[in-house]
Amino acid sequence: MRPDGTVIDQFRRSTNAGAGPDRVVRDIEVCLSEEFSQSLSSVSAAGIGIAGLVDREDGMLHSAPNLEWSSVPLASKLSDQIDVPVTLANDVDAATFGEYRYGAAMDVRNTIVVFLGTGVGTGVITDGHLLEGQDSSAGELGHVPVVEGGRDCHCGYEGCLEAYAGGWAIGKRARERVWSDVDQGKTLCDLAGSREEITARTVSKALEKEDELAEDIMQKTGDVLGSWAVGMVHIFNPDRIVIGGSVSEGFPFLKDRIENSVQEGAFEQFCREFAVVEAQHGDYAVATGAASLAQSSFGTDEEHQ
Amino acid sequence: MRPDGTVIDQFRRSTNAGAGPDRVVRDIEVCLSEEFSQSLSSVSAAGIGIAGLVDREDGMLHSAPNLEWSSVPLASKLSDQIDVPVTLANDVDAATFGEYRYGAAMDVRNTIVVFLGTGVGTGVITDGHLLEGQDSSAGELGHVPVVEGGRDCHCGYEGCLEAYAGGWAIGKRARERVWSDVDQGKTLCDLAGSREEITARTVSKALEKEDELAEDIMQKTGDVLGSWAVGMVHIFNPDRIVIGGSVSEGFPFLKDRIENSVQEGAFEQFCREFAVVEAQHGDYAVATGAASLAQSSFGTDEEHQ
Repeated sequence: MRPDGTVIDQFRRSTNAGAGPDRVVRDIEVCLSEEFSQSLSSVSAAGIGIAGLVDREDGMLHSAPNLEWSSVPLASKLSDQIDVPVTLANDVDAATFGEYRYGAAMDVRNTIVVFLGTGVGTGVITDGHLLEGQDSSAGELGHVPVVEGGRDCHCGYEGCLEAYAGGWAIGKRARERVWSDVDQGKTLCDLAGSREEITARTVSKALEKEDELAEDIMQKTGDVLGSWAVGMVHIFNPDRIVIGGSVSEGFPFLKDRIENSVQEGAFEQFCREFAVVEAQHGDYAVATGAASLAQSSFGTDEEHQ
Repeated sequence: MRPDGTVIDQFRRSTNAGAGPDRVVRDIEVCLSEEFSQSLSSVSAAGIGIAGLVDREDGMLHSAPNLEWSSVPLASKLSDQIDVPVTLANDVDAATFGEYRYGAAMDVRNTIVVFLGTGVGTGVITDGHLLEGQDSSAGELGHVPVVEGGRDCHCGYEGCLEAYAGGWAIGKRARERVWSDVDQGKTLCDLAGSREEITARTVSKALEKEDELAEDIMQKTGDVLGSWAVGMVHIFNPDRIVIGGSVSEGFPFLKDRIENSVQEGAFEQFCREFAVVEAQHGDYAVATGAASLAQSSFGTDEEHQ
């Protein structure tokens, strides 16, 4: 990425995470030497976005359950390998910062970014800064209970937004409904092949066929998402909610549901400049965001020059 | 208040708000000349905390519905009158900052302050700063929906924390329960004199007599407050929740309910250093906080010297 935010190159490689962080760091260097169109000596900083608990201050990855890594000084490892300063961030924090710095929220200073995928990943920019909390882990807005005593969430608590709006939850709710009402669930079963194979994607397809059960499931998702959004607007008084992720793409009406709920339910003075907008960085949201964070951390963006 | 936070004098006067802001500002000067033990020339800054929508940057009071004031440049009015710089803040923001700067949260940088009174007033300190949002109005955590589709709230939305934990709501819920079950409500009616006169204070008294209906009402309040607290901890990853206000004093077990809900329900890594503590500034919370904010704004506290 250039100092003005223009992306020079982007490419994807699968990581050999099972071989451990040292191997992955070496692979990154090899990948850069093979794919990157510029000389590494022209690079002044690098950023990593990773699904896990990180300390941005010292570039330490505390834990990354999906990779089964813990206590890895990942920023310094990569920095040693490629000889440029490296900043390390949680993947959703990175993507949030990217949407703020060069994406859907680049003209505002207060925004909530929500990625509705298998889970619900969220980040917050307040007064131009990423919300961090006491150990850099704040901003878990997907695990805010909206339905007191409601459905079990993967986080161990109950009634969270994710338990209604995460892709896993939409699929699970659909499968449960089909178990309890086989007749009404015929469209979903037919589309998926079997009850066990119903996912959020099946619900999305059934909705295109105006299936009543799918409509009912997504009505509830919209209600919960709307209630959640009113609360988040009351908390953060943001100019924007940025929405992205596979569930947002599969159910595009959710964007309007959020917008309408906030306009109808939130304090009037909070709504005057408020809008819900789509995330812009797609599959490269984390990479773009990590590069933006590296620029910001090491003062190589135009704002710092 | 001295630069180290020691309070020199504190006194209360009722304001003649109906006579308008110019009169109140003149009354403040008179009050200071009559009551303040030091010379006004020894004062380097003053702070105002007021129930209303304010812009801290320019000291403008946009609206104060209780006083029926709007668009008043209150900071500059008082500054002209007493000839010191004046900072203006929302009352709960001021009280929050006071608990952070010299009160129950003075050793941490991330805290949520919640005053359970007639309504629910809240403020947030994140990374050492008051949460503000795009028009200085963020931090309305009392109006976060916790019960999707739940009870009507005074804010116009439904299912908010305040609709279960505000003093007005506890009284209203009790009156409704007594209407629908006269026998079970006998203790509450006797304590209040009549059904119409039941308030949160009546519920508190009934609870001391182990009244089942009062226990049931406050069980629900505790459940909602616990759910809310888990969400707020997931959002802000704070070191402390500071709790104060008349409802908190009338129902002291609510502090433990919050603590237990968070310890049981929130992410483990968010709970290691977490505690719920009582607010320290009592009736002078707003005044102490406004003075702290004035110190901070004009650099007259020890931290700035």
